[in-house]
Amino acid sequence: MTETPKGPVDSSRVPRFAGPATFARLPRLDEVPSADIAVVGIPFDSGVSYRPGARFAPSAVRETSRLLRPYHPGLDVSPFATTQVVDAGDIAVNPFDIGEAVETVQEQVGALMDTGAAVVTIGGDHTLSLPLLRAVAQRHGPVALLHFDAHLDTWDTYFGEPYTHGTPFRRAVEEGIVDTEALSHVGTRGPLYGKADLTDDQRLGFGIVTSADVMRQGVDEVVGRLRSRIGERPLYVSIDIDVLDPAHAPGTGTPEAGGLTSRELLEILRGLNGSDLIGADVVEVAPAYDHADITSVAASHVAYDLVSLLSVNRATQRNRKGVEQ
Amino acid sequence: MTETPKGPVDSSRVPRFAGPATFARLPRLDEVPSADIAVVGIPFDSGVSYRPGARFAPSAVRETSRLLRPYHPGLDVSPFATTQVVDAGDIAVNPFDIGEAVETVQEQVGALMDTGAAVVTIGGDHTLSLPLLRAVAQRHGPVALLHFDAHLDTWDTYFGEPYTHGTPFRRAVEEGIVDTEALSHVGTRGPLYGKADLTDDQRLGFGIVTSADVMRQGVDEVVGRLRSRIGERPLYVSIDIDVLDPAHAPGTGTPEAGGLTSRELLEILRGLNGSDLIGADVVEVAPAYDHADITSVAASHVAYDLVSLLSVNRATQRNRKGVEQ
Amino acid sequence: MTETPKGPVDSSRVPRFAGPATFARLPRLDEVPSADIAVVGIPFDSGVSYRPGARFAPSAVRETSRLLRPYHPGLDVSPFATTQVVDAGDIAVNPFDIGEAVETVQEQVGALMDTGAAVVTIGGDHTLSLPLLRAVAQRHGPVALLHFDAHLDTWDTYFGEPYTHGTPFRRAVEEGIVDTEALSHVGTRGPLYGKADLTDDQRLGFGIVTSADVMRQGVDEVVGRLRSRIGERPLYVSIDIDVLDPAHAPGTGTPEAGGLTSRELLEILRGLNGSDLIGADVVEVAPAYDHADITSVAASHVAYDLVSLLSVNRATQRNRKGVEQ
Amino acid sequence: MTETPKGPVDSSRVPRFAGPATFARLPRLDEVPSADIAVVGIPFDSGVSYRPGARFAPSAVRETSRLLRPYHPGLDVSPFATTQVVDAGDIAVNPFDIGEAVETVQEQVGALMDTGAAVVTIGGDHTLSLPLLRAVAQRHGPVALLHFDAHLDTWDTYFGEPYTHGTPFRRAVEEGIVDTEALSHVGTRGPLYGKADLTDDQRLGFGIVTSADVMRQGVDEVVGRLRSRIGERPLYVSIDIDVLDPAHAPGTGTPEAGGLTSRELLEILRGLNGSDLIGADVVEVAPAYDHADITSVAASHVAYDLVSLLSVNRATQRNRKGVEQ
Amino acid sequence: MTETPKGPVDSSRVPRFAGPATFARLPRLDEVPSADIAVVGIPFDSGVSYRPGARFAPSAVRETSRLLRPYHPGLDVSPFATTQVVDAGDIAVNPFDIGEAVETVQEQVGALMDTGAAVVTIGGDHTLSLPLLRAVAQRHGPVALLHFDAHLDTWDTYFGEPYTHGTPFRRAVEEGIVDTEALSHVGTRGPLYGKADLTDDQRLGFGIVTSADVMRQGVDEVVGRLRSRIGERPLYVSIDIDVLDPAHAPGTGTPEAGGLTSRELLEILRGLNGSDLIGADVVEVAPAYDHADITSVAASHVAYDLVSLLSVNRATQRNRKGVEQ
Amino acid sequence: MTETPKGPVDSSRVPRFAGPATFARLPRLDEVPSADIAVVGIPFDSGVSYRPGARFAPSAVRETSRLLRPYHPGLDVSPFATTQVVDAGDIAVNPFDIGEAVETVQEQVGALMDTGAAVVTIGGDHTLSLPLLRAVAQRHGPVALLHFDAHLDTWDTYFGEPYTHGTPFRRAVEEGIVDTEALSHVGTRGPLYGKADLTDDQRLGFGIVTSADVMRQGVDEVVGRLRSRIGERPLYVSIDIDVLDPAHAPGTGTPEAGGLTSRELLEILRGLNGSDLIGADVVEVAPAYDHADITSVAASHVAYDLVSLLSVNRATQRNRKGVEQ
Repeated sequence: MTETPKGPVDSSRVPRFAGPATFARLPRLDEVPSADIAVVGIPFDSGVSYRPGARFAPSAVRETSRLLRPYHPGLDVSPFATTQVVDAGDIAVNPFDIGEAVETVQEQVGALMDTGAAVVTIGGDHTLSLPLLRAVAQRHGPVALLHFDAHLDTWDTYFGEPYTHGTPFRRAVEEGIVDTEALSHVGTRGPLYGKADLTDDQRLGFGIVTSADVMRQGVDEVVGRLRSRIGERPLYVSIDIDVLDPAHAPGTGTPEAGGLTSRELLEILRGLNGSDLIGADVVEVAPAYDHADITSVAASHVAYDLVSLLSVNRATQRNRKGVEQ
Repeated sequence: MTETPKGPVDSSRVPRFAGPATFARLPRLDEVPSADIAVVGIPFDSGVSYRPGARFAPSAVRETSRLLRPYHPGLDVSPFATTQVVDAGDIAVNPFDIGEAVETVQEQVGALMDTGAAVVTIGGDHTLSLPLLRAVAQRHGPVALLHFDAHLDTWDTYFGEPYTHGTPFRRAVEEGIVDTEALSHVGTRGPLYGKADLTDDQRLGFGIVTSADVMRQGVDEVVGRLRSRIGERPLYVSIDIDVLDPAHAPGTGTPEAGGLTSRELLEILRGLNGSDLIGADVVEVAPAYDHADITSVAASHVAYDLVSLLSVNRATQRNRKGVEQ
Repeated sequence: MTETPKGPVDSSRVPRFAGPATFARLPRLDEVPSADIAVVGIPFDSGVSYRPGARFAPSAVRETSRLLRPYHPGLDVSPFATTQVVDAGDIAVNPFDIGEAVETVQEQVGALMDTGAAVVTIGGDHTLSLPLLRAVAQRHGPVALLHFDAHLDTWDTYFGEPYTHGTPFRRAVEEGIVDTEALSHVGTRGPLYGKADLTDDQRLGFGIVTSADVMRQGVDEVVGRLRSRIGERPLYVSIDIDVLDPAHAPGTGTPEAGGLTSRELLEILRGLNGSDLIGADVVEVAPAYDHADITSVAASHVAYDLVSLLSVNRATQRNRKGVEQ
Repeated sequence: MTETPKGPVDSSRVPRFAGPATFARLPRLDEVPSADIAVVGIPFDSGVSYRPGARFAPSAVRETSRLLRPYHPGLDVSPFATTQVVDAGDIAVNPFDIGEAVETVQEQVGALMDTGAAVVTIGGDHTLSLPLLRAVAQRHGPVALLHFDAHLDTWDTYFGEPYTHGTPFRRAVEEGIVDTEALSHVGTRGPLYGKADLTDDQRLGFGIVTSADVMRQGVDEVVGRLRSRIGERPLYVSIDIDVLDPAHAPGTGTPEAGGLTSRELLEILRGLNGSDLIGADVVEVAPAYDHADITSVAASHVAYDLVSLLSVNRATQRNRKGVEQ
Repeated sequence: MTETPKGPVDSSRVPRFAGPATFARLPRLDEVPSADIAVVGIPFDSGVSYRPGARFAPSAVRETSRLLRPYHPGLDVSPFATTQVVDAGDIAVNPFDIGEAVETVQEQVGALMDTGAAVVTIGGDHTLSLPLLRAVAQRHGPVALLHFDAHLDTWDTYFGEPYTHGTPFRRAVEEGIVDTEALSHVGTRGPLYGKADLTDDQRLGFGIVTSADVMRQGVDEVVGRLRSRIGERPLYVSIDIDVLDPAHAPGTGTPEAGGLTSRELLEILRGLNGSDLIGADVVEVAPAYDHADITSVAASHVAYDLVSLLSVNRATQRNRKGVEQ
Repeated sequence: MTETPKGPVDSSRVPRFAGPATFARLPRLDEVPSADIAVVGIPFDSGVSYRPGARFAPSAVRETSRLLRPYHPGLDVSPFATTQVVDAGDIAVNPFDIGEAVETVQEQVGALMDTGAAVVTIGGDHTLSLPLLRAVAQRHGPVALLHFDAHLDTWDTYFGEPYTHGTPFRRAVEEGIVDTEALSHVGTRGPLYGKADLTDDQRLGFGIVTSADVMRQGVDEVVGRLRSRIGERPLYVSIDIDVLDPAHAPGTGTPEAGGLTSRELLEILRGLNGSDLIGADVVEVAPAYDHADITSVAASHVAYDLVSLLSVNRATQRNRKGVEQ
């Protein structure tokens, strides 16, 4: 890509509250020749076991992302200026058939990746991470996984259903699409069904940094542990917004007290700068339970950080290629 | 039943805000030998096409039903004193498989009916009316149907799915479980997909009393029209709470402006006194969108009126039988 | 009073959202020599049997009353220009002792009346109407009572307690402080404890215009019935805001579906123009359950109409006296 | 226009909660060659005297308009099939300079009209009606005005400012851009500053149908009065959502108790079928005060009715022209 | 107890949102022969000095406790499997007479304790801790007290009333029912009436760990200080949910900025593992001020931790007894 | 001042929820001969670029300040007993003309200062800090500035407008009314327009303590850095409530994830004890987006701490003068 990227609408001319609600007021995919990074919505919540409503998250996050500005001081990067970032719209999936929905997502996100774009997904519920990881693994092989969540999401089935928001990562390990040397949960807390939940999870290959660990060790030590586990592997980051405390993210489906602050989450993400991030999702925002849009604000900042990390990674790779040539 | 019915908790001794939240503070089914009328919850909303959340309606309606008192001045009846009314709890259904859920409902509500109880269901979404009508028709033959709703709910399929909250009454006509001489919608309004929606609906046998008709003709004229259509037939009443204006029922999934007031709905129901009501449902309360519980309050009053009508009908039949013997 | 009354703050110079929140932005009692009409708050809700919170009503109603303007087109009167209307602040009562609270109210409102002011009270819960009627009757003898409410409020006791928000009017009849020839409930609806509630109420002397009656007969016919019952008697009006449908007044403690619209209530009040209104209360606004202040807005408009009616009555009496002299 | 209009996204393939939030899921203006009817947002609320926030109305109304379907049974018309209706996006205006904003609106809406489109504006506050009427009058001459509002909006100035949300129609009469033979307010209620407000308003040429008149006379009689006043004149309709009762429209800036129901408003609008409607606005939706989106739902239905009326009018004119040729 | 305890409803068969809302979906007291630990609700808030509404806390906490699962990873215990835990329902108390209410609580909770159950109370307001401590002391002698709260609650009287939510611990010291060697407040902050509040409190025997102390010293150091003060004494824990910051617990009656996070509170509680906990309460949840149930979620997690600590303590004692025998 | 100051209403006689809502229930300015410290409201939000509504902050903060008590344990001071603190009411400013509003504020706050009072302002939006600093500098010369905010507020213009809520501190530096040796931002975070925002800000003289810095360094180290920068200079503190995380302050106009906790903010403020604080403001509280008043609670505690610091400073100066004389 040699052209100057098309950036967001200029808010000194058009107030932030005006105009179409694309993510961060960025251009649509159809407005540019091609994209380095695509933000895509998947309004699907049929895999939810408690409070539904994440189907309305893509539009809610887009609306609150109007507040994002183009320079990231923490990472010292202007992602929209150095890479072409776009809003790729929503993927329409069948709300009445989980199996069909999972296939549609894998296929359509895969097609988007094949245009050369790294993809940040705004869910939707956590069921989506399975087809997203499938699409990633088809193109990159098994990936390191960094999973932020109050819950393990490595349960087996609910009501006999293998594809739900509590089971994607067990499926992912079973399918061999994640690298079992580099699987981490961050932010876990709250009661489980039994001790076997923990031993099963460990057997699948996951390491756990609990929410209490983040409080006791501090963000920088946690980042060190995570980075050493990830190494140089291609990395996928999946963020269930319920990793945040309900104070920071009331708008979610299975809230657990005792969670991370949004500051901790954002600083851990910034600690990933320099890793080989290749894709990410932000899931489980349930706007009907939000107030003053604070959950959507947190999610849009998280998505912005993920886009920024991808942008740095893209630019690094481009530079490296340039040097090699 | 010759014993005195077990009534609700006495609120002069136990404040209304104390104690378990059974419907109207009535006994549970397992606390009495048998029941004349059973209120049952079905927390299921997987058939919803827009705002989900009706899975939380049974518990919300039970909580607000704490305010109900045992004498109905409009019908001059004390339903809990003349008939044994109970809370039969919730029917647990699979949230991930609509087909299985529909079967479970038909079977379990049928089993409840076989104990001799007339059933008032608190949904859940409108998908439920199909298995409820099946259970009724298995025991009573095709019934007259009085359907209160902003929408027709006689569409064919969504995303190929035949069992959804927008399609139960087309299925019911196709299956021959309703009496096509006596099908009425009340409260219809709002835009449709096309004129064929109306002609299809008419062809299926439905008559329509729009929300504007209720305003122009008044409650008593509407009652007259409905009663003459129903006649002496066994009657099933299905009430989608979105028949009320969003001012009266904000907590619902597909709100339409221009609806009935709760006073109109309650007065129409009272106009059914003397008809052969045999079962009913109240569906589509979505508590996440409610405020100050006003939608649940309306739903609990509506359910109370349905219970009262059933109670009068039961008592009438009992008296008639007594006379005949 | 020969001086020009001191009116509200001029909103062409001071925006409505600025300055102290006195009722309708009127002067405080201590800012004028004497008042014709005093609006007083009584933040007391210890007599409530379900949702408490009416203790916050006086401040909430004052805040929303910022929107009131000084000319009443329906009555063609500028109450603040023709009579001195003031905000007399709150009466502080003991929240932990109902009996003491009832005495304090009777005494302090009585003292206020003795300065020559007619009093409009913003409650607080309906317990207050008893000491308010006592204070009125001490000065005017037994009065006609027009009681707007979803409930009868003529129950006997709760938990042995005679002074609660469900019992003031039985006490008032027992104490002989209301004129049993002229007692009316308007807006009644919802279930009762038993048929005896109705027969007791009738025996106490009350006539009932139900909420359904208002719908069927229309406002003007209802006004006619009420006026003929009141006649020339001195009149006290007590308005429980739950007389309105929960759609119009969600912020209240014991909501009942099927109520009046705010338009009906205001038009009935305007129909009282010319009657000998001598005092009034607006009770049971519970701000914690309100949204967008709509209940407080309704209450402040209702209070404004009561003030306007009192103002007309005062002016009429003054003119009559002037003529007589 | 000879092509088939491009209609809304098909909701049997793409769920209503997915995809970009254009009004009624219609195409953007840039997706079609030209438009018959354009819905445009103007996120501006700097002319507000009490609760601000209408700047967020265009995006809120677009989000809730996802629920609209393409056939209007009340008018028996499929507006999106018979005319090309589009979402023309938002007009960006300076929030810090009312004068500049007024000019921008007049100019840009005028330019949109010059493409041949009739315009339905989603405000923003009522200040906007002045530049909208200017743009209309420049192209059609002085128009009949039907103004739905709790307030007269014919005050002179606030704080010396002539362009505010309380003054547009005095300005419009002064500028000669409305036909003073055919000016009507509908839904007026609530206190005024003084009797002069009414006499001034009458002198400017306005007739008033109060909210109480609508209750007493009924919708059909009101429609008759309005139609006879409008006659064959080109008609502009301006709808302040606060014409609705706060129960139906809590999300607005200057709520007044005692208003219209949404059913009354929609039925009056439908009564305008056959009049020469040429433009319209829906203003004063303040989403921060809304709940469960009920105000936005009402506004989106109102806008849909206005679009439908314009569509019928366009088709009639086209047919008439066809016959004439 | 040698039988296997009856545990919660299996959520792989019955969705969490279905079925009766007992605490953690546990059996009722009447469904088991006897209980080791009983969770009881006391819906009483007549001792509140600011925002009332805690009377609705028991039902709100039960509803949100549906999310709890049976294994506690932080304490490595499955409390419902190792001890019989039940929901003992609500204690009905007179809302109109504080003195009578205090007596009822002492008597009925005492009776529950006499069945052999350790009791965790869901209030209700903080007035309740006095009769709860009385019941405990009658059976265990004076106990160590660990009091989590923004406030000291050692004031003397309000309006002459000795039993209120601000005075229980002064009463408890006066009555000799707590061990003045082992009294601690945790989380205190916010302004006081005067310096004497602090000196009085110290004189009564309390040590204070302020909210700022928790921030500066960290959870583990605080736990150490508390544990050394408690020693081997029988311990009662009283948790006013307002110990949490209003961000974490908006739904409470007297919020104070600058409070604990829910993570800090839960980790301090886990630090009590091994102490001789014999009873506890969680009070001052006011659901009307909550949103998305986050306060109730925090309270239900806190109650779950208290139950888990009691369960560990019971099992330890049983084992010890087994060894001794 | 030799008289005993007139303090707040006694809450042992008048419940906190009763009586007029002055700040902390203090006397009005007109009730005392003169004041040491005046809390003044400025309900103005026309300089806002995103969510408006701060015009309602003064009344909301006053209402929640009812909970404040007169002794500050953190600073060991009873500010209302040692200095005369008053509520000076609101300054009425033109909402339609930013320039005029800025002038009015400078003039009227200046006049208030000239009576000898130190002023704590409750905004309103951040535009106000410019005229407030002007008034301060006219009387004290250029001052040290400690600015708590998520944003820099040193941008140049929006839409050509130099006076907005994003630009006051650039204007202040340009006008020479702040001491460029002692300018600090605390709590900054979130994306910017470009790197130049940072370099410009630095060039203007500002040092930055980001929100992440506060987390990593802790409150005490941050206080040390700030104190050494401020030195003995006269100090003005400006607190945009959005410095708090949206969890702690949802009710604000431009929320950014990752902010301070209210405990951190309050402890930093307490660390300023002993500095020469001469004035302060608390701005950008937008009540329409608040819930359970938590933002207003935080703001009222912050204002109380500022008043307490001013009170200590006044008393110190008085003592010093006494010694000198």
